[in-house]
Formats: sequence, C-alpha cells, structure tokens
Amino acid sequence: MPAPLPSELAFIRFVSVENMMKLIHHIGVETVLADLIRYIEEDFRRWDLFDKTPRLASHSAEGVIELMPTSDGEVYGFKYVNGHPKNTREGLQTVTAFGLLARVDTGYPVLLSEMTILTALRTAATSAMVAKALAPKDARTMAMIGNGAQSEFQALAMRAACGVERLRLYDIDSKATDKLVRNLSNRGFVLEPCASPEEAIEGAQIITTCTADKQYATILTDNMVGAGVHINAIGGDCPGKTELHRDILGRSAVFVEYTPQTRIEGELQQMPQDFPVTEMWKVLSGTAPGRTSDQQITLFDGVGFAVEDFSALRYVRDRLDDTDLYQNLDIIADPDDPRDLFGMLNRATT
Amino acid sequence: MPAPLPSELAFIRFVSVENMMKLIHHIGVETVLADLIRYIEEDFRRWDLFDKTPRLASHSAEGVIELMPTSDGEVYGFKYVNGHPKNTREGLQTVTAFGLLARVDTGYPVLLSEMTILTALRTAATSAMVAKALAPKDARTMAMIGNGAQSEFQALAMRAACGVERLRLYDIDSKATDKLVRNLSNRGFVLEPCASPEEAIEGAQIITTCTADKQYATILTDNMVGAGVHINAIGGDCPGKTELHRDILGRSAVFVEYTPQTRIEGELQQMPQDFPVTEMWKVLSGTAPGRTSDQQITLFDGVGFAVEDFSALRYVRDRLDDTDLYQNLDIIADPDDPRDLFGMLNRATT
Repeated sequence: MPAPLPSELAFIRFVSVENMMKLIHHIGVETVLADLIRYIEEDFRRWDLFDKTPRLASHSAEGVIELMPTSDGEVYGFKYVNGHPKNTREGLQTVTAFGLLARVDTGYPVLLSEMTILTALRTAATSAMVAKALAPKDARTMAMIGNGAQSEFQALAMRAACGVERLRLYDIDSKATDKLVRNLSNRGFVLEPCASPEEAIEGAQIITTCTADKQYATILTDNMVGAGVHINAIGGDCPGKTELHRDILGRSAVFVEYTPQTRIEGELQQMPQDFPVTEMWKVLSGTAPGRTSDQQITLFDGVGFAVEDFSALRYVRDRLDDTDLYQNLDIIADPDDPRDLFGMLNRATT
Repeated sequence: MPAPLPSELAFIRFVSVENMMKLIHHIGVETVLADLIRYIEEDFRRWDLFDKTPRLASHSAEGVIELMPTSDGEVYGFKYVNGHPKNTREGLQTVTAFGLLARVDTGYPVLLSEMTILTALRTAATSAMVAKALAPKDARTMAMIGNGAQSEFQALAMRAACGVERLRLYDIDSKATDKLVRNLSNRGFVLEPCASPEEAIEGAQIITTCTADKQYATILTDNMVGAGVHINAIGGDCPGKTELHRDILGRSAVFVEYTPQTRIEGELQQMPQDFPVTEMWKVLSGTAPGRTSDQQITLFDGVGFAVEDFSALRYVRDRLDDTDLYQNLDIIADPDDPRDLFGMLNRATT
C-alpha cells in the first residue's frame, strides 16, 4: 500500500532565505521597513497582552544560542538566534536566526521562517520607530558609527520614519564604510565618510552606534555629545558589551524595550539597578512622556526583544497569502485517529 | 543578475514526517527502539556534561507550548512540543513536536526534524531502558493500562529491552484496546484484553500506566500492587496530572529522570518536597543502587526530559548519511562577506 498523503494540517509554511529575499524585493525594501515600523508599533501599543519572559540563553566559550519566545494569547512565536563574534573570522555570520509562529488554541505551528535577514529589518525598524517618537523633529543628518551588516538597514529605516537624508559614516575598518557607500550609492542619500567618530557626529541630530566587538568599548565619550541629539545605541546587546561612556547615560533620558532584559544586556549594565529608564511602549501608548525639551539628549538603549520578532513574523505571515514565496513543510504528524500514531506509521510501509 | 545560489553552509537537513516514517521502516522499528535505548543510555551515563534547564512553558486555557533545550558542550538541541488535551476531540494530535540540533562552536543549526513520531519512540525507549535496569529479571508479562498513541511503542521497546512477550491490556475505551490488538496482532505477542485494571495487572511483572486525561486520577490504588513489580508510570507528565494513589509511591523505590522537573510534573506532585528519589543516570552509571531486593516495588515516574530528545535527534542525524531521507532547507543567510547582508539582499534581485 502506498504511503498516504499527509493532510492539510500536517503542513506549515516555510520561508527560506531565498524566498525571504524575493518577498522583500517583491514588496520593496523601504516599504517593508515602513510596514514593519507600523507592525512593531501596533504590538508595542498592546504590550500588556504579551507573555514576556527573558530569553533562554545557552552560553559557551565561543558564543551564545538563545530562544526568545512570546505570545499575545492567540499566537505564539519564538526565535532561535545565535551570537558568535568569532564567526566573522571564519567567513560565517556572527548572528543567524530563524523563527516560528504557532496557534495558541491548538499548539500547531503555522509558519517557519528564516530570520537572519528579517532580524536585520526588524532591528532597523525598531530603531526608526523609536527615533520617530524621540528624535528632534527636523532630524535630517545621522551619524553612523559602525558600518557593518546592520548599517544600511538603519539608514533606510531612519529615512522612512524620520526623513534622514544625510549620513556621516565612520568605522574602525574603512572597508566597511566603503561597502556601505557602495550599497547605498544609488539610493538618494548624501554619504559622507569621516575619519573619526568625532568628525562623524558633527551636525548630526541622530547618532547611531552599531559596532560589533564583544567587549566593553567606549565609542562615544561624554564631551562628544551635544545637547538635543537622539542617540540610537544598538551595538551593546549582550552581557559584557557596551559602546557608550557611562557619563552620557547619566545626562540622557534613557528609553528601553523591556527593562529587566536591558539592565543585563544593554548600556544600562554600567549603571546602578535603580537608574531611571522609560519603556518605549509607554511612550507609544501615551502613558509616559518622550522627549520633553529641545535641549534634552534622548538615548535608546536597544537590545532587541521577542515582541519585535513576533511582529516581524506576523508581517511575513500576512504578506505570504497572495504569493508563492513559501514551501509547505510536512512537519506535523497527523494521523486520522489521533490515538493511532503506530497505525499511521504501519500504513506508511510502501 | 540571477540570484546567487546559497552556499553549502546555508542548508540544514530537514526530516519530514514522511521521511521519518521511511527512515524507521528502512531500519526497522524494533531496531530503532533498541538503538535509541543505547543512545539514551549513553547520554544518561555522561549526564554531568549536559546543560540542564527546566523546560520553558507558555500556558494557556487550552494547553501548553514548551521549548526544551539542552547541550552537551559540542551539540545544542531543543524540542518544540505542545500539549493540548482537547485537541483529540477536534481530530488533532494532543502532542505534536519538532526538534533541532545546532553546533555549539558556531551556533549554526544542522538538523531540523519532525519529533511527534520520534518522541513516541524515545519515550518508549526511555521506559524500556529504565525497566531493563529495574524490573524483575524474568519479566515476561506487562500490564498496559491506557492503550493510546504511546502503547504499541512501549510494548515493542519492552520486548527489545526485557523480553516482554505477554501483554495484558486495559483502557477505559475498549476501542483503544481494539486498535492496539489490531496494530500488534502479527508481531508475536500474546495479547490479552482485560475488563478492569485489576484484571490487567494479574500476573504482570511490569505495570505500565499511560493514560491521557489532564487531571488527578487514580488508575492504580495501593491494594492492587503486589510485591516485586516494576511500575512504569508515564501518563502523569504535567502539573495537575497524576495516575497513581500516593500510598503506592510511599512503599516504592521511586526513580526519576531529573528531580526538579519530576517534582512539578510527575506522580511526585503528590509527595512532600523531600520525598526521596533516585535519578536514573546514577543507576546507569553505577553510582546509586537500582532494585535492591526481589520484594521491592520499583517505580519509574517518567515525565520526559530534554536529554532524551537530544539522544533521539543525535540518532537521526547519525543515520541520515547513507540515505536520501531528508531535504536541504535553505534557512541560514550566508553572505560571502558576513558584514554585507544588505549586499547579498541587493544582489538577489533577479
């Protein structure tokens, strides 16, 4: 007897790296970023609904593997993500990721997706969503310190959200800056490579720090940062890794995604446990103030949070329906009689 | 420019439900069970190497979704598994699962596999591994109380490990027993359907309880259990679900997988926090006694543990090499230059 065909229920949609890239080009990368800003903002506004647990990390000498689950009560999602700083030297990605959505009512998975590219997009969209709420109104110039894998996405998202059009670029490795200039050369930005971080932040209303070394570093010192800017600090994203001098935090209004996680992973590692911060969902839902004066320095200490991955997966799920940019994965055993798993196995003998 | 082909590194092996069934038939289900007993025993004997964290559970009114990670320092694995008792009524599986292995040194995933069928196999293999160590030497008769999805696998594994050849069967729903008899009728067992649990345990040296209701139930009462038997209690596997009267535990030597988890999920829920138990890895590695007399009742309070899933995934990985029973999944973004994710995306425009 031939193997019976799996039922509809046995399949979940899988978005490969290739299909993710096709989907992004099909929609347009800047539209995707603008859409993601909206999706993430929607989820931040219904923050209370989410089951928020810290990520479950497995540390080793070489890096970390993390599971980041969350749920809004109807849909459950998690992301698998690794962080291995030494990978770059072997020609591998520092960070790779994939994610899953499932139905809470049945526990059945419905979507599996690559998330290396999607995480880059959601990270940029989150920064841009925050900058839209906190940066000076007429921000047109952004300093980009660190011109690695995240930098181009940040630039495009900041333009979509805030109208940034001039980029002042610095990286300790000028080849990274060359790569950024090459990638964004035909996209309507004014691109200004700079010789130092000090030079890069001249005239910038938004300062993005996004460097990759896993260590305590001081990319920005206190005397470099003038009044009224918005700092988007996203490189310090794990224990033992920071980018800013602590005195900058001391004179800024600091905004975070989820306080318990940021105190362990973000720039906040340098500050006392009771250092005051504001969670962004409160600003976005109108229950806490954002920027309160033109002179104030606002600082987003971004580390990435499970809700953002959830929003991004939700977006991919919603945009797949009218495309063929997915494969059906036969990952759920679905016998006709749920108690008869052995019978299903038996009948599969060809 | 056409989309570049993904590199070797971008792929992980995926074992679908269909391919898992083919793999099991290719090897033979009884050989698979015997192999799994060996793999799980190997991992229990190197217990100290494993990173043991409790599972990360997301509870809802309808059920639970759990992530169960572990690592031996070289390989990282996790299982996604749901438990939704009401699913059966809608023609869905109570439990579905899939799992993943990754390299600890790079964080790159290497294997994704269905685990609904594989979990059934590893659960039976674990029970059999324990019974081999603890049951009376000449155990040939097993009572099977609960004849659902797990029952046939238990029977085959118990024969592989202990030589069980006579099965005394009871289920509150006689259709479940009919199904078991149908599935195992040509496999060399003596099959004896019984009208009550009391009748089923007559003459049995091993008593397996494996019922499915999510509630405190009493499948076995104290006066039913005679001296010298081995009880394999695997149905009480989540908070709020037990199968045995507490007095049975009181006069048995109780063995568990991982104590902190079993106290929350197993029959042990009914006992004080300091009720003495023995972890099976100690028995298997010779640092704690197993059965100490012919009169002793040994009781395995099995709830399932991440290390067993790890062993099962490791086995599947090892057996795939000389087969074509997997698909290559393009789930890892792997740009030529790890810092140039955006360039990879750009170049994918067809």
